[in-house]
Amino acid sequence: MARKKAGPELGGPAAGNGILSRRHFLEGALVAGATGAGVSSARAEPLAVQPWMKVPGAGFSGYGQPSRFENKVVRAIPPPPNPATQGVGPARTPLHMLDGIITPSGLHFERSHSGIPDIDPDQHRLVIHGLVKRPLVFTLEMLSRYPMQSRIAFIECAGNGMLLNAPQPQQVGIAPLHGMIGCSEWTGVKLSTLLGEVGVEPSARWVIAEGADAAAMSRSIPLAKAMDDALVCLYQNGERVRPSNGYPVRLLVPGFEGNMNVKWLRRLKLTAGPAMTKDETSRYTILLKDEKAWQFVFPMEVKSVITRPAPGITLKGAGFYEISGLAWSGNGSIRQVEVSADGGRSWAPAALQGPILRQAPVRFRAAWQWNGGPTVLQSRATDDTGMVQPTRAQFAAERGLRGAFHYNAVASWSIDEKGEATNVYA
Amino acid sequence: MARKKAGPELGGPAAGNGILSRRHFLEGALVAGATGAGVSSARAEPLAVQPWMKVPGAGFSGYGQPSRFENKVVRAIPPPPNPATQGVGPARTPLHMLDGIITPSGLHFERSHSGIPDIDPDQHRLVIHGLVKRPLVFTLEMLSRYPMQSRIAFIECAGNGMLLNAPQPQQVGIAPLHGMIGCSEWTGVKLSTLLGEVGVEPSARWVIAEGADAAAMSRSIPLAKAMDDALVCLYQNGERVRPSNGYPVRLLVPGFEGNMNVKWLRRLKLTAGPAMTKDETSRYTILLKDEKAWQFVFPMEVKSVITRPAPGITLKGAGFYEISGLAWSGNGSIRQVEVSADGGRSWAPAALQGPILRQAPVRFRAAWQWNGGPTVLQSRATDDTGMVQPTRAQFAAERGLRGAFHYNAVASWSIDEKGEATNVYA
Repeated sequence: MARKKAGPELGGPAAGNGILSRRHFLEGALVAGATGAGVSSARAEPLAVQPWMKVPGAGFSGYGQPSRFENKVVRAIPPPPNPATQGVGPARTPLHMLDGIITPSGLHFERSHSGIPDIDPDQHRLVIHGLVKRPLVFTLEMLSRYPMQSRIAFIECAGNGMLLNAPQPQQVGIAPLHGMIGCSEWTGVKLSTLLGEVGVEPSARWVIAEGADAAAMSRSIPLAKAMDDALVCLYQNGERVRPSNGYPVRLLVPGFEGNMNVKWLRRLKLTAGPAMTKDETSRYTILLKDEKAWQFVFPMEVKSVITRPAPGITLKGAGFYEISGLAWSGNGSIRQVEVSADGGRSWAPAALQGPILRQAPVRFRAAWQWNGGPTVLQSRATDDTGMVQPTRAQFAAERGLRGAFHYNAVASWSIDEKGEATNVYA
Repeated sequence: MARKKAGPELGGPAAGNGILSRRHFLEGALVAGATGAGVSSARAEPLAVQPWMKVPGAGFSGYGQPSRFENKVVRAIPPPPNPATQGVGPARTPLHMLDGIITPSGLHFERSHSGIPDIDPDQHRLVIHGLVKRPLVFTLEMLSRYPMQSRIAFIECAGNGMLLNAPQPQQVGIAPLHGMIGCSEWTGVKLSTLLGEVGVEPSARWVIAEGADAAAMSRSIPLAKAMDDALVCLYQNGERVRPSNGYPVRLLVPGFEGNMNVKWLRRLKLTAGPAMTKDETSRYTILLKDEKAWQFVFPMEVKSVITRPAPGITLKGAGFYEISGLAWSGNGSIRQVEVSADGGRSWAPAALQGPILRQAPVRFRAAWQWNGGPTVLQSRATDDTGMVQPTRAQFAAERGLRGAFHYNAVASWSIDEKGEATNVYA
């Protein structure tokens, strides 16, 4: 079967090693070579009648689940550091198995400090007190009476990518490397509405948010952020927030590091200064190379990751592939993502899938004609503040590589002749 | 505790019977009366330490589920017409339990004509043939190599709302009345890309889409729509499409009636004319009052429904409530939603939650100060083509009430003194 070659009239090359132009991609021109392997014109007719068409299918269920054939699409759960504390640590999202920007709630990463509490929503209370005119206790029912707001937003653990600080590239999957990022449509009451109800004293500058888990995980949030766009969330992706993500109430602090989005929210205390909780002193500070550390670096910096190809996906021979991934910035929205198929020597802009929203991931896509040889794929995001992802060398020069948090350098997948992807430093 | 009253400086009344102004709502002014019942300032301190804070919580799971306290949030499944055919009929979404625009995949409505087939993705094939230059057979793996696109879009069954045609208002919940609408982020290959691969013959005008269920549910789709924005979807809300919604491949025909979005897609046949399948002749035609019927009315017309308050939610006494609901149009995007708290005598615009996307639902919200007396709530949507939802009387005058499909008139909830909502014709 004759196949057209990608030529200039289709957009043609945009960067080295087979990256095709964005125009080519956006205009939906014929994808030369996409059918290089696996698509067959043989035996298009008669159509095979598969066994599942010969019997009535299954009946209805109240709450549906994924196909049994997808039972390997699960979160990656490392062994707990202490067998007695099964609920301490992370469960990470298998980004390479997903597409779009919404993370299915069952696969949204979780990070717990003392497991997932089994909260009875009728017994749960949210208290707002401290430097306020009238401390109030809210039931869930009362929270449900306030005006709500919905927004699509990412939450990223401050420690996402910490394995990329290792001196040698760790040969693990994309979930352990990058899987502490998730995105949901969150719905709840604006925190500013509730703060209006309690009446904030002029001396208040911070809000201490505390969870109802056994660790009482707590973080200090600047009042300005609380009044700006923080949301006291009751719903995640349409339904009530899942237990692993904070049922029945989670605080959303758009763009700020993950654990500030306090799960199982039970208390908001208005204070003059930050509380210096264990989770903002012993942890979640940014260790620098000169023995100093940054504290209270809240927004997650601009970042991107190629989710396909990625470790766990084997390319089936040379030909056309889509390079696809996610880019996000806690400081705003994504302006541009560039991709490289030659280890960063040449770059071309990827197509960005709209809507492009603040503090939400963007799905980027680029057309790639793989020649079957070894190469290195990279992506590099720029946000609307002009911040660009640094190279690993630039990141190391500024901060060193001893920290565990806020790593956002350009990441690299090596593709070998077998079509397998591995984590490399390039 | 003193509470401010809603006055003109906060926006004040915008329509009869307690509807407050949109400006009031959007600007996040103090919600006077929201705490009229249930919020308490007593015993804000010391905070109670609930039992779930005294023990370590649960460990991690590969694929999370909703809280056990939400186990009544399920799809509504009517008894099948024939006990031997458990998978024939609908399972409807409990809209009153949800918020935002994304429908959790486990609760997305389903309509099956012969149950849910148990499809092995490795064995599944998509054939494109008929009036094409080179018929092709696609494996899932090959589909995954093509450029993809993601979009948030609703799917609504053509029969959604058919119970509202009954001579007397049916006293059932919102799910049986309105629950055959769902919205997901869908990701897949543009059908136009695949049609480019096979090469469409000039004589082709229609595409017959056939599912791999035992009913081989089939619909004829105009080629123009197929080339415009139809999507061959592999992913729903980030993960692979759920079995009840077409695993492993579903056709998305944005805005067109539900069953044209063929599930378990196995065949696309290019033809000169429509196939006149049983699902576009004996069903899914619009019966009119003069014994005629409309066939091939594809886009679902502009529509809205108030999801809170709604049957199944009891208001707890007079005071502030948010009126919240969904509006959508298969013909484009939503321009305006108006709400009435006096049975349609006066109307005020609701706030529309962005992003406002084509063929996606919009969440609308309005502020309402309920005086505790009986009333009738309504919503009325206008789309960007200028189409407005008709009243029930207008709908009946034009089409009669014998049809089962494409009912889109303004719907009404009666609220009684106990705060309970019921379906009424008003």
